[in-house]
Amino acid sequence: MNSLRRPVSINLGTVHYTKTAPWYLFLRPLDMGMNIQRMADIAAKLGIALPTAEVYGGFSGFYDWGPIGAELKANVKRSWWNEFVHKSHEVIGLDGSIITNPEVWKASGHVDHFHDPIVVCKKCGKRFRADHLIEDALNINVEGKSAEEMTKIIRENDIRCPACGGELGEVKLFNLMFATQVGPYEGSISYLRPETAQLIFANFPRLYQLARKRMPLGIAQIGKAFRNEISPRNFLFRLREFEQMEIEFFFDPENDSCPYYDDVKDYEALVLTAEMQERGERERRMKISEIVPEIPGREWIVYWIVRSLRWYEKIGVKKDLLRVREQLPDERAHYSQGTWDIEFNFEGMGWKEIQGVAHRGTYDLSRHQQHSGKSFEAVRPDGSKFIPMVIEPSWGVDRVVLAVLFSAYDEEEKRKLFRFHPAVAPYTVAVFPLVSRDGLPEKAWEIYTDLLDEGINAVYDEKGSIGRRYRRQDEIGTPWCITVDYQTMEDNTVTIRDRDTMEQVRVPVDEVVEWIRKHVKSSSA
Amino acid sequence: MNSLRRPVSINLGTVHYTKTAPWYLFLRPLDMGMNIQRMADIAAKLGIALPTAEVYGGFSGFYDWGPIGAELKANVKRSWWNEFVHKSHEVIGLDGSIITNPEVWKASGHVDHFHDPIVVCKKCGKRFRADHLIEDALNINVEGKSAEEMTKIIRENDIRCPACGGELGEVKLFNLMFATQVGPYEGSISYLRPETAQLIFANFPRLYQLARKRMPLGIAQIGKAFRNEISPRNFLFRLREFEQMEIEFFFDPENDSCPYYDDVKDYEALVLTAEMQERGERERRMKISEIVPEIPGREWIVYWIVRSLRWYEKIGVKKDLLRVREQLPDERAHYSQGTWDIEFNFEGMGWKEIQGVAHRGTYDLSRHQQHSGKSFEAVRPDGSKFIPMVIEPSWGVDRVVLAVLFSAYDEEEKRKLFRFHPAVAPYTVAVFPLVSRDGLPEKAWEIYTDLLDEGINAVYDEKGSIGRRYRRQDEIGTPWCITVDYQTMEDNTVTIRDRDTMEQVRVPVDEVVEWIRKHVKSSSA
Repeated sequence: MNSLRRPVSINLGTVHYTKTAPWYLFLRPLDMGMNIQRMADIAAKLGIALPTAEVYGGFSGFYDWGPIGAELKANVKRSWWNEFVHKSHEVIGLDGSIITNPEVWKASGHVDHFHDPIVVCKKCGKRFRADHLIEDALNINVEGKSAEEMTKIIRENDIRCPACGGELGEVKLFNLMFATQVGPYEGSISYLRPETAQLIFANFPRLYQLARKRMPLGIAQIGKAFRNEISPRNFLFRLREFEQMEIEFFFDPENDSCPYYDDVKDYEALVLTAEMQERGERERRMKISEIVPEIPGREWIVYWIVRSLRWYEKIGVKKDLLRVREQLPDERAHYSQGTWDIEFNFEGMGWKEIQGVAHRGTYDLSRHQQHSGKSFEAVRPDGSKFIPMVIEPSWGVDRVVLAVLFSAYDEEEKRKLFRFHPAVAPYTVAVFPLVSRDGLPEKAWEIYTDLLDEGINAVYDEKGSIGRRYRRQDEIGTPWCITVDYQTMEDNTVTIRDRDTMEQVRVPVDEVVEWIRKHVKSSSA
Repeated sequence: MNSLRRPVSINLGTVHYTKTAPWYLFLRPLDMGMNIQRMADIAAKLGIALPTAEVYGGFSGFYDWGPIGAELKANVKRSWWNEFVHKSHEVIGLDGSIITNPEVWKASGHVDHFHDPIVVCKKCGKRFRADHLIEDALNINVEGKSAEEMTKIIRENDIRCPACGGELGEVKLFNLMFATQVGPYEGSISYLRPETAQLIFANFPRLYQLARKRMPLGIAQIGKAFRNEISPRNFLFRLREFEQMEIEFFFDPENDSCPYYDDVKDYEALVLTAEMQERGERERRMKISEIVPEIPGREWIVYWIVRSLRWYEKIGVKKDLLRVREQLPDERAHYSQGTWDIEFNFEGMGWKEIQGVAHRGTYDLSRHQQHSGKSFEAVRPDGSKFIPMVIEPSWGVDRVVLAVLFSAYDEEEKRKLFRFHPAVAPYTVAVFPLVSRDGLPEKAWEIYTDLLDEGINAVYDEKGSIGRRYRRQDEIGTPWCITVDYQTMEDNTVTIRDRDTMEQVRVPVDEVVEWIRKHVKSSSA
């Protein structure tokens, strides 16, 4: 977002920009500020993301990615895989099944514990999260209470429907996994995975062997996950069908030093520790290495947080809109020795988690070892065996894309545009013939297909005036436009126009591929 | 597959190779021949594909892609998207939701008609496809018959359980869609999509607008689909969770000529028309343009079949193992004016469909227009409106990968290897330091990360003897291995070793990226 347009009434989070904004910009009407609904409208208009099957009224919690969004999301995922799988010496990939053996979800605890308590109003029929109602009414935490206990609290305190004041029914537990019958045999129930992580844990014994017993060992995965949210909301932020990018990073607690630690220990970012939250403080700039306590795998935790933050810079998520927030003890799972959220400051919505880095200890592998009766141990060079500990950096793909959208969107007097980073822009370059005759389209098409052959994502457009074509590419965030004109036919040069500066340079056709590559690379350096 | 190893007892399909095979090769033991189970074993051993959650005994019809398979499958998908979306002037992309509004599946006919008739043996409890039992016993086609009618046929002809001879129960219809409850309201049932196609059809009105009313217009999608198969089987061939790559290519039946037709009309391949099948003939080499009759969109059908066949060559699917088979009239959907399957000759299994090219007429858009009450029409330059016809080239990703595996696998006296095409090989290049000291690993790592930065998928390995490292890369089909040795430290050159010829050349480090790019490109030409 161009922060200059930020209306004063919006939660500012950090206040880095407002000082430099000239006063008259604040006179713009409030509806010009960004918020999640406005972004949803822009996304639909440009074909980034659409309510699924909108001719039937959509379907709450589900979106279809349109032509521009499909490219953008694919680029984010590819960049991530390249960064965290290919460029990580310790990490291998996996692409697990969405439906798997239901024993996985028994072992993981999801069958027994992955539910929300819901309560129905007897009068108006609306459904609510019972824990939220109680917390709002009494300001007490009911984490871990049973459905019966919550019903009792509601009765004793006469908590009523916030919508109509009617009496509330019994609290019931609603499992958030989507269940489905597999095969024609009644009773064969499995689930759509509520997280990709368990596919990694369940496959650990085989993958550890395939990786020739390397330790530490990271196993990465990208894929869809499904949660039957009671109230999906906020566009791509809380979906029922979403996508995750996860790494389970296994290590030996007795040998947990990180060889790259020197490279990350001085990296600074906005942070908010649990202590700072308890003291009511705001986030501030600190070294990540200062905020992670002495727990096993500490150096790796710092490493994964810093690598994540560096990657966000590479895909154009604004650093000043990111902070690392330590989860409060009552927020994190009982087996976790610490969890850090990476949050993005969404204009109009404030700080929201787009990634978590959780210490899961030996919990998951122990559960699978116990449930399957198979060994989930690793072996040290000295022959002794141990269950590896795990650190889990876990990204929400849709949320990261949303952070990319909020970071890139900008409005100028004459254009609205996404200033996407070349690493993730739906198209890296557009190719136009100035006019649709005299051999210009053929020449432009040739340059276009050459770019594609070189692995550069290009788009071809010959419809409308050249000015309109530039605007169209600005709107969807294409960094460069190449135009073939009459001079091209004489001296084999083209113009390359920069989205951000709107300046044009003339480049020989033979050097176009190199020019683009060089500029993509230098913008990632 | 190296066809020379093909045992004589196997269904040969085409007989191109056997003439050139020396007689003594046929003396090899039969179990050296390839078949689907042996490929499944190799795939598990190398980490290509694993039965999902195998510590819990797997789950019938579901597989997890391991580290090597995840890369291979991603490369096949990326090659496809680049070829058919980016390089197709008429095609845009979509990435639709797996769960969508259930009205989509009512409109498409899946809720009412997408089922198999099953019957249970009263004695042994085994389940069977009733239509298959009847067809086997009486040699009659029961397509379109109701469950009651099939029960009656079974009773009247005393058809019994093929497993135990027991009496069979009533025929019941089993819908192949996975159903699931969405949200906490009982009765809100939706389905996992049984095909990606309907997401494209349902979104047509918006996507047509986004594409600025271009016609013809192709809309492409890659994604998971789910069918609750009664008998999943044959490794990746018949799965319950699988992946599709589809294009719905919409055109105006009154303006259906293809501007690229000259480029495809003389392309020859093995074909088997409906007529040839009825006459009991084998496939033979013919022009694709000769086998498509005069129906609307004829030129585009030829175009899509030829483009598909050309793409298979680019990813290393052997041309001689592919044929185009026209579906027989009783195989295809009632609304189809013609459907052509592209089949691959899997050793040990024979010709099997890996892709279909179906003429779906105006069926799907008409159904959605009727069901939604919204317009699914396109408009001609003269203002007249029409419902576009559609041609659907549809690939099974898992099956295409399987064809890549069968095409690439080879055995020599001293090595077993996948001769993957560089365009899809899990890794394009491996980088080794000759020894793990004297600065060689650092130099090798530098070359390795440079390759990654240039978008070339590389893998780094410093474990084991250089010979073993070569074999390891041969096994997973890496086309080239770069070795940093002591000479590198003197003159900044490395050796590049070719997987297929096992020959080595010395190349200056500065020219490695260009060398690899040039060789990838020339192998795709």
